[in-house]
Amino acid sequence: MLSVVKIGGNVIDSDAALADFLADFAALPQPKILVHGGGKLATRLSEKLGIPTTMIDGRRVTDAETLQVAAMVYAGWINKRIVAQLQALGCNAIGLSGADANAIPATRRSPIPIDFGFVGDINPQQVGAKAIRHLTDGGFTPVFCAITHDGKGTLLNSNADTVASSLAMAMANLCPTQLIFCFEKDGVLANPDDDSSVIPTITPDTYRELKEAGVVSKGMIPKLDSSFKAIEGGLKQVVIKHAKNLGNALGTTIKSN
Amino acid sequence: MLSVVKIGGNVIDSDAALADFLADFAALPQPKILVHGGGKLATRLSEKLGIPTTMIDGRRVTDAETLQVAAMVYAGWINKRIVAQLQALGCNAIGLSGADANAIPATRRSPIPIDFGFVGDINPQQVGAKAIRHLTDGGFTPVFCAITHDGKGTLLNSNADTVASSLAMAMANLCPTQLIFCFEKDGVLANPDDDSSVIPTITPDTYRELKEAGVVSKGMIPKLDSSFKAIEGGLKQVVIKHAKNLGNALGTTIKSN
Repeated sequence: MLSVVKIGGNVIDSDAALADFLADFAALPQPKILVHGGGKLATRLSEKLGIPTTMIDGRRVTDAETLQVAAMVYAGWINKRIVAQLQALGCNAIGLSGADANAIPATRRSPIPIDFGFVGDINPQQVGAKAIRHLTDGGFTPVFCAITHDGKGTLLNSNADTVASSLAMAMANLCPTQLIFCFEKDGVLANPDDDSSVIPTITPDTYRELKEAGVVSKGMIPKLDSSFKAIEGGLKQVVIKHAKNLGNALGTTIKSN
Repeated sequence: MLSVVKIGGNVIDSDAALADFLADFAALPQPKILVHGGGKLATRLSEKLGIPTTMIDGRRVTDAETLQVAAMVYAGWINKRIVAQLQALGCNAIGLSGADANAIPATRRSPIPIDFGFVGDINPQQVGAKAIRHLTDGGFTPVFCAITHDGKGTLLNSNADTVASSLAMAMANLCPTQLIFCFEKDGVLANPDDDSSVIPTITPDTYRELKEAGVVSKGMIPKLDSSFKAIEGGLKQVVIKHAKNLGNALGTTIKSN
């Protein structure tokens, strides 16, 4: 089974947490794909360069300068550092943006009603699954940042969660695929105040029961809804777990009945 | 025949020259590989960030901060921008550093007698020719920046000319290969003051004659010596030409007798 693993900025911002995670990732069976978020370096670099941050409705606008910083930090420094570290662990990583091999074409979000700048929305049906399959067939482990392109020569900034789920859904058309979302909790909790109350498995049936019983927190519902949508779309399972637990079974597995 | 094409910073620093060059490169027959230098952006970014430049014997020292800037600018912004533009031209580019797919392992230069920092020297015999061949066999066009790695998790800064010649020599073991060096002259000139005096072909025999007649300028001798060395190593030919002439026959071809 192909594993698509997503890590967020919180792991990338800690050298120790990243090293631990990458050791666990390198030990996962092939084929596998890593998708990484950005972390705080891009914001820090923008601040140092005096690039103003524009926020609309709580969301950052990606102007031309911000896009350049994102491409430099995500596709340049973070991506290549992860690749070099995986290579040292014996994992034959190949670092990519969505422009490379036309792996993830995106559409620049409409400037109406709000212009968020160089932001790319992804259609999973346009993901270059066969190109990516050629890489995994060659024994490589693709490592994606969330920079995409519009196919007309312009780079775009996309959401790393969406990159991961789009890749997983596209690859599921070619081979059995699971999506592993690493986040800052151990999984879906039966009691939000108790980190040990991880629900091991959720199916559509148990999800209905959990919702009726009011067990699932409001914040988790969109995540779970999109996970079940991905499973309906052909994914074998979605696993939600803490990055530190990639090497063990702890976490919540979302799958069909 | 596989073409390995090298462009320098002077092309990258001009949007118009780069666009023209990429159109010509996209039109070249496959398989092909592009290697690009850095241009002035890294220096400008270092200045903006207040990173001091240390020079020893006229050569820049790559300290940790300078390496980070180089990785961001070369592997991030410049590489991905070139890839996005080639994709728009219908060329299925895949942008890589030497860490990706372990394509170009390097050795950090000895700090004795002079410590130049994170600088990587390349042994062409260690270049991952089979990995690169898997990519060209898949219809991809690799686009390399001159960032390499030591195989122990550390990125290194290498010379882009050396990246190109090492790649070409390694690939020549697998398939007929030519190396095309684009620089700021139309080719090797019979008269340095006359840009139209391009010598079309140089073989070892004519090279001896040209040297004896004092025709070849001192600055060209190292370039030509290393070209002939590469040809002895298995390369079909080395072409030296202006970037603007990639699409035509103008330039100097160096080949065996």
